[in-house]
Amino acid sequence: MVNQVQRADGSWQSCKSDSSGAGTSGESSKESSRCSTPVLDADRADRLQDKMRKRIESGDHWFSLEFFPPRTASGAVNLISRFDRMGSGGPLFIDITWHPAGDPGSDKETSSMMIASTAVNYCGLESILHLTCCNQTKDKITGYLAKAKHLGLKNIMALRGDPMSADWEDEEGGFNYAIDLVKHIRSEFDDYFDICVAGYPTGHPEAESYEVDVKHLKEKVDAGANFVITQLFFRAESYLKFLEDCRTVGITCPILPGIFPIQGYQSLCQLVKLSKLEVPEEIMKVIEPIKDNDAAIRNYGIQLAVEMCKLLLESGKVPGLHFYTLNREVATMEVLRQLGLWIEDPRRPLPWAVSANPKRKVEDVRPIFWASRPKSYIYRTQEWDEFPNGRWGNSSSPAFGDLNDYYLFYLKSKSSKDALLEMWGEELKNEESVYEVFTCYITAQPNRDGRKVMCMPWNDEPLAQETNLLKDELEKVNRRGVLTINSQPNINGKSSTDPIVGWGPPGGYVFQKAYLEFFTSSENVSALLEVLKKYEPRVNYHIVNVHGHNRTNAPDMQPNAVTWGIFPGREIVQPTIVDPVSFMYWKDEAFALWIEQWAKLYEDESPSRMIIKYIHDNYFLVNLVDNDFPLDNCLWQVIDDMFEQLDASPQALPQELLS
Amino acid sequence: MVNQVQRADGSWQSCKSDSSGAGTSGESSKESSRCSTPVLDADRADRLQDKMRKRIESGDHWFSLEFFPPRTASGAVNLISRFDRMGSGGPLFIDITWHPAGDPGSDKETSSMMIASTAVNYCGLESILHLTCCNQTKDKITGYLAKAKHLGLKNIMALRGDPMSADWEDEEGGFNYAIDLVKHIRSEFDDYFDICVAGYPTGHPEAESYEVDVKHLKEKVDAGANFVITQLFFRAESYLKFLEDCRTVGITCPILPGIFPIQGYQSLCQLVKLSKLEVPEEIMKVIEPIKDNDAAIRNYGIQLAVEMCKLLLESGKVPGLHFYTLNREVATMEVLRQLGLWIEDPRRPLPWAVSANPKRKVEDVRPIFWASRPKSYIYRTQEWDEFPNGRWGNSSSPAFGDLNDYYLFYLKSKSSKDALLEMWGEELKNEESVYEVFTCYITAQPNRDGRKVMCMPWNDEPLAQETNLLKDELEKVNRRGVLTINSQPNINGKSSTDPIVGWGPPGGYVFQKAYLEFFTSSENVSALLEVLKKYEPRVNYHIVNVHGHNRTNAPDMQPNAVTWGIFPGREIVQPTIVDPVSFMYWKDEAFALWIEQWAKLYEDESPSRMIIKYIHDNYFLVNLVDNDFPLDNCLWQVIDDMFEQLDASPQALPQELLS
Repeated sequence: MVNQVQRADGSWQSCKSDSSGAGTSGESSKESSRCSTPVLDADRADRLQDKMRKRIESGDHWFSLEFFPPRTASGAVNLISRFDRMGSGGPLFIDITWHPAGDPGSDKETSSMMIASTAVNYCGLESILHLTCCNQTKDKITGYLAKAKHLGLKNIMALRGDPMSADWEDEEGGFNYAIDLVKHIRSEFDDYFDICVAGYPTGHPEAESYEVDVKHLKEKVDAGANFVITQLFFRAESYLKFLEDCRTVGITCPILPGIFPIQGYQSLCQLVKLSKLEVPEEIMKVIEPIKDNDAAIRNYGIQLAVEMCKLLLESGKVPGLHFYTLNREVATMEVLRQLGLWIEDPRRPLPWAVSANPKRKVEDVRPIFWASRPKSYIYRTQEWDEFPNGRWGNSSSPAFGDLNDYYLFYLKSKSSKDALLEMWGEELKNEESVYEVFTCYITAQPNRDGRKVMCMPWNDEPLAQETNLLKDELEKVNRRGVLTINSQPNINGKSSTDPIVGWGPPGGYVFQKAYLEFFTSSENVSALLEVLKKYEPRVNYHIVNVHGHNRTNAPDMQPNAVTWGIFPGREIVQPTIVDPVSFMYWKDEAFALWIEQWAKLYEDESPSRMIIKYIHDNYFLVNLVDNDFPLDNCLWQVIDDMFEQLDASPQALPQELLS
Repeated sequence: MVNQVQRADGSWQSCKSDSSGAGTSGESSKESSRCSTPVLDADRADRLQDKMRKRIESGDHWFSLEFFPPRTASGAVNLISRFDRMGSGGPLFIDITWHPAGDPGSDKETSSMMIASTAVNYCGLESILHLTCCNQTKDKITGYLAKAKHLGLKNIMALRGDPMSADWEDEEGGFNYAIDLVKHIRSEFDDYFDICVAGYPTGHPEAESYEVDVKHLKEKVDAGANFVITQLFFRAESYLKFLEDCRTVGITCPILPGIFPIQGYQSLCQLVKLSKLEVPEEIMKVIEPIKDNDAAIRNYGIQLAVEMCKLLLESGKVPGLHFYTLNREVATMEVLRQLGLWIEDPRRPLPWAVSANPKRKVEDVRPIFWASRPKSYIYRTQEWDEFPNGRWGNSSSPAFGDLNDYYLFYLKSKSSKDALLEMWGEELKNEESVYEVFTCYITAQPNRDGRKVMCMPWNDEPLAQETNLLKDELEKVNRRGVLTINSQPNINGKSSTDPIVGWGPPGGYVFQKAYLEFFTSSENVSALLEVLKKYEPRVNYHIVNVHGHNRTNAPDMQPNAVTWGIFPGREIVQPTIVDPVSFMYWKDEAFALWIEQWAKLYEDESPSRMIIKYIHDNYFLVNLVDNDFPLDNCLWQVIDDMFEQLDASPQALPQELLS
């Protein structure tokens, strides 16, 4: 790579630079396209078309996934979970279809617009929003596009869509074809959006001829489309011929084959009808006899798709594969696994999942408090206009949005109220019953009703892998009423490719300060404060109750970096901090979750509810950082000392912590 | 300490916080006032009056030093060296007297204004500029103040000054007394300056009475002065009585005793005459008999000053001592040493000396290239309006000022042309003669003429202590024509209080990547480039010649952090970087020094001059970083491999490096 450096005097100097900076040449191509921070990798700021170009140059095949919007809210919750799961395999992008009948541009949680926004903002997935234009006014379309832009969407799949009625006719100056939409996007939004258009390997069903259809595609690309995704097809040669014909007429942009793994008889028939495609006889011959055996059809579909994809990839002409998932995951994931495209152990560019909203492309530091509630963090910081320059400085006070709606759609528990009651107890007898729930969650042991506790109000996910490193210690303290909700072990320079704690490009070293966050009683806090005097300045602490009475030894209220990485040729990256100011915003959320997610499961005035309410009103939220990361973590010793202190002589709570 | 946190909703929350963050309570007071980065310590942003207040609160005694402007340019060079030496002992501030006869507000290198500016900007010393007002117009005074503000001066000692002639009379509306100047500063510059005024323990010689004089001081303070420095005195009780009288009339600000260590008979007589003070009989009795023995008088003066200072400090009423140095260092330093106020092993807040210009108070990162030429760096970045936010980002290009004047006053060598010739060779025979000079500088061995090489064009200071850690290796490579001008060893988490490599507050850990910068021939560079392929991505390099032909493997032209520190309760600090863009500005300076400082010592067209010119025209400037800081430094192996490669098969220089 030759880098150009502009000097202050306006002259240019060229600097020869190997492109392999982030990794050795052999593996770098795969790595380079997956690291996302501005410091760690320029890719995060790249447009989708640039990402494609880089991967085409490096010969690094990708895959992408198409989904349609769900019909119900609970369907949406499930789809978002699916985004998280399928996102972990490393798709270059996903796309969300446009359902004209489903109020697609609205703020409904099931609309095309909101599903695409969720994918980008809350799941961190590069996403394409479909948009169909027929029977739409220009103002309406411009409104949709402006809204998409405002939500952080950067890519549009421009389609004509199906006419509402059979007697549809061209409208002068209106949107009659996809090309009109492409032109409109370019004229109204200039270069802002990357635009994708559809290609038809066997010709558009309404086109005069295959040749005319290829010519139309050329016109759509010339009008400003950046790449093409094809309609599904059943034979590799259909695509390859189409590709050649496109190249012949001068279409040079990427043309991605649309892959449809057959997953069932009904869905196949429906899709074929919709797309006016014919299923080849040799396929129908196999399927007809097994049409009532879903598993058999799916296995056959997987086998068919894998074979066709192999042919495509081996042709050397296919940079990436696009999958029509039909919102299902098993078949597509299996095909990708067999092709070796599914990334089993994805490298993490940062310790937390990065957002795909362009506004957040420079975000490279977050407070540790929301580690298990990243969607809430994104929601509460969505109005920030800079990430994070100046945000975490000594004197600046981050303004977090309120989180009044604890049933915010993006934070909805995947578990039903009944399931939660089974996990957290149909009836609580005392504070110790609560300790038990925490302990069962940590140990993954069944509770007294024989149920596993799979989530907690503060963690809607299974425990992080690295938390397992602390499991024994965590169990011990939770049993005694130190109710942990967040923790990380200390790390003194492990490889950035370590499978459990590694993140960032290879060749680096990652570090952590030990962190522990928990709720505990005021008696414990009194003893803890006495004990902490012995640990100055090794241990930093913040202690606060629901009323905001608090105590900290943070110097000048500065943030404390608790995760950082050192990489070849880079500035230091410090993606996780303990920030005293943010903590006061987090505590509102952390305390409210007791009531909103737990207490409200029980009848008003019921003993169970009163127990949770008592904890909410009287316990303190505590966080501890052991600054001496090269030494053995001392935080367990701090807790041990606290219990010892408590046994020896109970302490009075300091004046400022009294409510 | 109770920290207030303003929340987004406008409400305030108070956070109890120990003030001992940076250290344990016992030693923190001393440390806290000496750490200067915004991240490491808020003090750097403090005004002088706040620094005083904090040290009064912590009971941490300070000292300060008064200097007068020199008469000649070479006197100025010496005085600046003295600032650097005496600055290392940790004065809270220095002050520069105003010499009405010496064009004090001009741009002359000897003016009061420029000396104070140099102390602040280039020596990093908190400084007070004296200003006298009598016989001056308001416009003139306002001009001086505006200029001082523009130069980064923040403190003014407001004085009346001596009338030019004996028949001077009060002028209506003019500046008749210091109080008029205090009022003028406050009215024209509001709160910008901290203002100091003079106090007279035995009464101003022209005052009606002692009591009236104390009343005048009260008026000066009420008019806006922030603290008082007293005229010299010979008995502790004079000061202590004066202090009590000031407190009685309601002067509550700090009143610093002015200490005058007697250093010689003549200077004593002169000062006494000027200040119209009487020397107590018991002192004159001792001095008269030894008046021609300078050493004896100085020793007596030291003893007297130490005894008086001890009485003052033991009174518990004196927060700091102000020394009238008469621009000499021995006596004052000795007094301070005996009092235990001189800081023998000063803690470094950062690896480089911080500037005292308020504009630079947030500066916390610098390119490593100027490590031995910090004054040049400050000069070339004086127009920057932010340090360093956004300055070192991936896409931002720092604009360095030109450094055309290599005899820039602040960069003047302390050595004469003759001394330089003795060190660097009256006559050079070949390139090897140059290698020898570099080697002698590194080893501190005398050259073939028996002279020690004490400085080099790129290093006007003795070698840094940590460079000694690399001495043997440096000697070896310099002998063979790898002409090193900058280097640092790798460090993997040493204590921040390590006497050689430590910096920042106690309780932290400091790290470094190994760094080596040198000039070498194009033959060597060809072999080096071949060898460096084996060291990807472990070693980052930049290689450039005087024509700007260059090569680097810096990923995306990003900066590489090569010094960083991890501290309790802080964000990561990374004060030193290797920045590819800055390097191109540095190389202009580094190459020019060959010609400006070395070649020009010799006659035009002389063989010696041609040899230096040849090196300037043909050698490359190379820097290398070993990213694997936890492993043994591999850079020596790289150089060894280069020589081995060279012996085995000479390489051709790549096309882009050909001039």
